[in-house]
Amino acid sequence: MADRYANFANSGLGRTVVKRLGLPDPPRLRRHQAGDPLADGPVLVGAAPDGRLSEPIRKLLGDAGVEVAPSFTEGTRYAALIFDATGIVASEQLRALYDYFHAYARSVKVSGRVIVLGTQPDLTPGPEEATAQRSLEGLTRSIGKEFGRGVTSQLVYVAPGGEGGLESTLRFLLSGRSAYVSGQVIRIGAGTVEVPADWERPLAGKLALVTGAARGIGAAIARTLARDGADVIALDVPAAGDSLADVANSCQGRALQLDLTAEDAPARLAGYLAAGPHAGVDIVVHNAGITRDKTIARMSADHWDSVIGVNLTAPSRVNDLLLSRSLIPSGGRIIGVASIAGIAGNRGQTNYATSKAGVIGMVESHAADLLGRGITINAVAPGFIETAMTAKMPVGLREAGRRLNSLSQGGLPIDVAETIAWFASPASAAITGNVVRVCGQSLLGA
Amino acid sequence: MADRYANFANSGLGRTVVKRLGLPDPPRLRRHQAGDPLADGPVLVGAAPDGRLSEPIRKLLGDAGVEVAPSFTEGTRYAALIFDATGIVASEQLRALYDYFHAYARSVKVSGRVIVLGTQPDLTPGPEEATAQRSLEGLTRSIGKEFGRGVTSQLVYVAPGGEGGLESTLRFLLSGRSAYVSGQVIRIGAGTVEVPADWERPLAGKLALVTGAARGIGAAIARTLARDGADVIALDVPAAGDSLADVANSCQGRALQLDLTAEDAPARLAGYLAAGPHAGVDIVVHNAGITRDKTIARMSADHWDSVIGVNLTAPSRVNDLLLSRSLIPSGGRIIGVASIAGIAGNRGQTNYATSKAGVIGMVESHAADLLGRGITINAVAPGFIETAMTAKMPVGLREAGRRLNSLSQGGLPIDVAETIAWFASPASAAITGNVVRVCGQSLLGA
Repeated sequence: MADRYANFANSGLGRTVVKRLGLPDPPRLRRHQAGDPLADGPVLVGAAPDGRLSEPIRKLLGDAGVEVAPSFTEGTRYAALIFDATGIVASEQLRALYDYFHAYARSVKVSGRVIVLGTQPDLTPGPEEATAQRSLEGLTRSIGKEFGRGVTSQLVYVAPGGEGGLESTLRFLLSGRSAYVSGQVIRIGAGTVEVPADWERPLAGKLALVTGAARGIGAAIARTLARDGADVIALDVPAAGDSLADVANSCQGRALQLDLTAEDAPARLAGYLAAGPHAGVDIVVHNAGITRDKTIARMSADHWDSVIGVNLTAPSRVNDLLLSRSLIPSGGRIIGVASIAGIAGNRGQTNYATSKAGVIGMVESHAADLLGRGITINAVAPGFIETAMTAKMPVGLREAGRRLNSLSQGGLPIDVAETIAWFASPASAAITGNVVRVCGQSLLGA
Repeated sequence: MADRYANFANSGLGRTVVKRLGLPDPPRLRRHQAGDPLADGPVLVGAAPDGRLSEPIRKLLGDAGVEVAPSFTEGTRYAALIFDATGIVASEQLRALYDYFHAYARSVKVSGRVIVLGTQPDLTPGPEEATAQRSLEGLTRSIGKEFGRGVTSQLVYVAPGGEGGLESTLRFLLSGRSAYVSGQVIRIGAGTVEVPADWERPLAGKLALVTGAARGIGAAIARTLARDGADVIALDVPAAGDSLADVANSCQGRALQLDLTAEDAPARLAGYLAAGPHAGVDIVVHNAGITRDKTIARMSADHWDSVIGVNLTAPSRVNDLLLSRSLIPSGGRIIGVASIAGIAGNRGQTNYATSKAGVIGMVESHAADLLGRGITINAVAPGFIETAMTAKMPVGLREAGRRLNSLSQGGLPIDVAETIAWFASPASAAITGNVVRVCGQSLLGA
């Protein structure tokens, strides 16, 4: 699992060799550790005239203990450049973005953050403003590719009246929790949200179900949700054996052995949850997934069926049954795991890409209805993540996956888990219908 | 401009060398020539049970002179595999796609076509069908990457009641006109459309304005629209000099020298069009665009302003004025030129990517309103196109641009022009709000 090249490139000798030969230079990413401050330095907040978000953001960050710089100081390295672009209503006014980022581009720390805030184009009053706001996507994605040194760049669209729902997202993006998330567009809706009593344990009192929890990304998700205060049910197939119990024990949770593709599995799961102390489940993470790669001409029917069955049909059936029996209460969270293959397609993965594109469809098609019930539905779409699975890839393919992204390295299971924990937070009630890639801004796309 | 590698790889010796060394193998793409048949061989049409499109398609293709195979014959090479997936209402039924493409994947000709038809997820009756229909995107994009040999793969969503608006798209996709379009999702709305008297000259009687027409892609657009019967106004800046007149002459059109970024330019253009024999303009192609590449830290304010001004503000101002003076009649077509940089962002192109993301915003934000006036608005998003501009790129960057796509080669200006001509057709009245990449399914994406 070790990325030996990245370790070398970050060694004393390695740094010299990498520089002389012009090789990829993967920075060591800042990742969240217990007790870390939210931002690892002062934050600079800018705005185009008439923006509606910079003042709430300054207040929110100040209250959270972040040092918000009153103005730019030459020589200071900032942990984040935040720009409120909601005041931009015409393309000529995009110049404000140039003025800000031209002046301060060189003042961002290693593993720093760029966050641009705007208004969803379809929520603006007319085409001129919608066009200007849509432009922001080209800017933030270019910055992600340009700044390097582990700096990530995101666009956060906040609906008018959505100022109150912003904090969980700012905290996620500023912190090391979002280390491997870059080049993304996040949409926050209107409405007020519950503020956790303790931001270190926002999931206290919540019950979370994680499928495919016996190893890899699933195990990281279970542990991360437990770290954030949730009671965890770690679910996997009976064949996963002892490792499932180990994961459950490591997060003081319960293990549940169940093959969700079995005809009666959703009903058995529903029965189990209904009989439990929560009489339902607050957070459902559909992580279980399999690959069975072959070109479609060589693929067996069984490999098609099993991938679609595990990755798409099972999550759909579980959702439908839990929702129809009202086992997911208001405040509930449904979180799918898609893939960049589901966005871009992949050679040898017609079955997998079809199933993962379906997961995106599941999110998009349920979001509006579920919002009325107080439930959000979102998905992560991992790129190249260092796991036992990717460790087995041929070296050429593995190196390509690791390097063909803006951070020149693979992500870790914790990066996917942190993104899911952000969706799961009670403070993320205004975030639904989002698909966020955890891919280091992979070059691969649709 | 010549792709010497592709020429070599397609030579007798080259084919051997490429095969022995496992080098990229760019196929020679089939491109449209006057008098070509619509499809260069028999077409196989399949369907999931209860699909609503396969029968209309068989009839439409038969009437157009295409040989529609009554059933699969072993040993036959098909020019296209068309699959009607509109009958698929649940993920288990996706199996029908496997059955079809598993059986016939090897029977597609070089430069053949895969076309899957579905229903827009947001137009389905519920989440289960929406999810299954959304899955199709993963399948078609994977096939585009997997089949190779110049085969392209698209997903065409057809609204219920949109069967009558399908012909222009099927003709475009089957023919060599779409040689460099692959991995795309096209949305066709409901409603009836005008069928051209002559499919070889669908733009007869229409007036088309093409900006940036003096060279490269713009010149190809002007000539292609003229070939399809349009009267053409070729517009460019006065500095373009004689080459603008040459292009105008070559398509028996008029040349118009105008710098559209000048304050009074939209009004002068409007005056020119109002005074002309059409008293307006039917087709507006906003092709004029510039690049001024530098990282944002090194970019001058002038280079930011000029790129935003030419690529985004000028088209917006022209649209607004022509529309407000009713100079674009019902049946009108507005077509923007975006870029994959506007979708994915690009290092050194914050200005360009911002402007091109804005072009996408212009399309998306105007589509619904304009449809009520009988006007469509769409954009192409070119990838690596062989022009004088790309010929000047450093060889490494140029080779990467050429090879990092499913067709292992750059596109030609005609490929962009043909896509625009398809949008421009009176028979494409049900296609609006689409952004179609002309990029050979470039790996680069968001």
